[in-house]
Amino acid sequence: MRRFIVVGQTASASGDFSLDDLPGSSGRLDVLLRCVRAALLTSHGLRRDVVVYLVLQRGPRVVRLGGESLKFVRPDERSLATLVQKLLLRHDAADDRFVEQKPGLGVASAGLDWVLSDLGGAHPYVLEEGAPDARGHGLDESSAFFIGDHLGFDAATRSALAMIRAEPVSVGPVSLHSDDVVAIVSNELDRRR
Amino acid sequence: MRRFIVVGQTASASGDFSLDDLPGSSGRLDVLLRCVRAALLTSHGLRRDVVVYLVLQRGPRVVRLGGESLKFVRPDERSLATLVQKLLLRHDAADDRFVEQKPGLGVASAGLDWVLSDLGGAHPYVLEEGAPDARGHGLDESSAFFIGDHLGFDAATRSALAMIRAEPVSVGPVSLHSDDVVAIVSNELDRRR
Repeated sequence: MRRFIVVGQTASASGDFSLDDLPGSSGRLDVLLRCVRAALLTSHGLRRDVVVYLVLQRGPRVVRLGGESLKFVRPDERSLATLVQKLLLRHDAADDRFVEQKPGLGVASAGLDWVLSDLGGAHPYVLEEGAPDARGHGLDESSAFFIGDHLGFDAATRSALAMIRAEPVSVGPVSLHSDDVVAIVSNELDRRR
Repeated sequence: MRRFIVVGQTASASGDFSLDDLPGSSGRLDVLLRCVRAALLTSHGLRRDVVVYLVLQRGPRVVRLGGESLKFVRPDERSLATLVQKLLLRHDAADDRFVEQKPGLGVASAGLDWVLSDLGGAHPYVLEEGAPDARGHGLDESSAFFIGDHLGFDAATRSALAMIRAEPVSVGPVSLHSDDVVAIVSNELDRRR
């Protein structure tokens, strides 16, 4: 099982955003949604062995998308935004337990701690510029990759990742968008099968 | 210089599509726009050494985005769709010459032949499943990568690529979305610098 945890520092957890101005009204949820596509979708297929967590820190809330039981996910940003918006609007903001609303799709009104409790022994990695290269690194197939948004990680997240001894890895010499990082890490794992 | 040519078999060249239903109304222009982001944008930056051509075969028309002189490009799909829609609507459909409307942004009411005439001696590669791996391949930095959309390539495009002896390469064992392919090829080139 591969897990991708994308931490959105400014991402709104309310679901109260406009589909016509996603970057401006959602605290850059668009960055996180593009990671969902890169992590879960292949050409005409869905990766059954991948779980994506979106940590919406302006809340906080966590959206969990589990490829194993997901039914149908469209790749375009607006469809993904609509999907996540519905999940957020239907969820009780006071409920810190994870509630699955549809197969593979659910929300917890909780933060990174909840994600850490859900990782089930996966080896934690944190994507960091300048860290040892993920290529040629003995990446564990049972892995959890923590990825920052356009702002990187906040200090509290860095502390939490240090506590669990998340191993820093990088994907090359250029600072890339989060979804490109997900695509490159996925490709690296695909090649090891 | 790196060039990415994305061929959209069903992509509409008219600009007459709805931003609220991009996949359904534009003939899957969304697939092509995601390649623009992956090819041109880095984290808080723009790749100056990249040119992207979108071949809209339901026309045909070619949109050319040249990183060297581009001013500002937002990464989200709706912003990219708005940008391309304006270019298409402003362009004379009878003009088969390339007309630059803004720095780095222009349209020609022409097809793949026009793109081939604009490649300036770049080494042509075609992304194909099952072809030799781009990794470990002596990729030329002065290169032109031809990438299909969600339907792959049509027969006429295959013939044209065979005529110019485009070299088949692949990016691994899984059939991926076009934008993920662009991200992985870009990463491969970045690592060779």
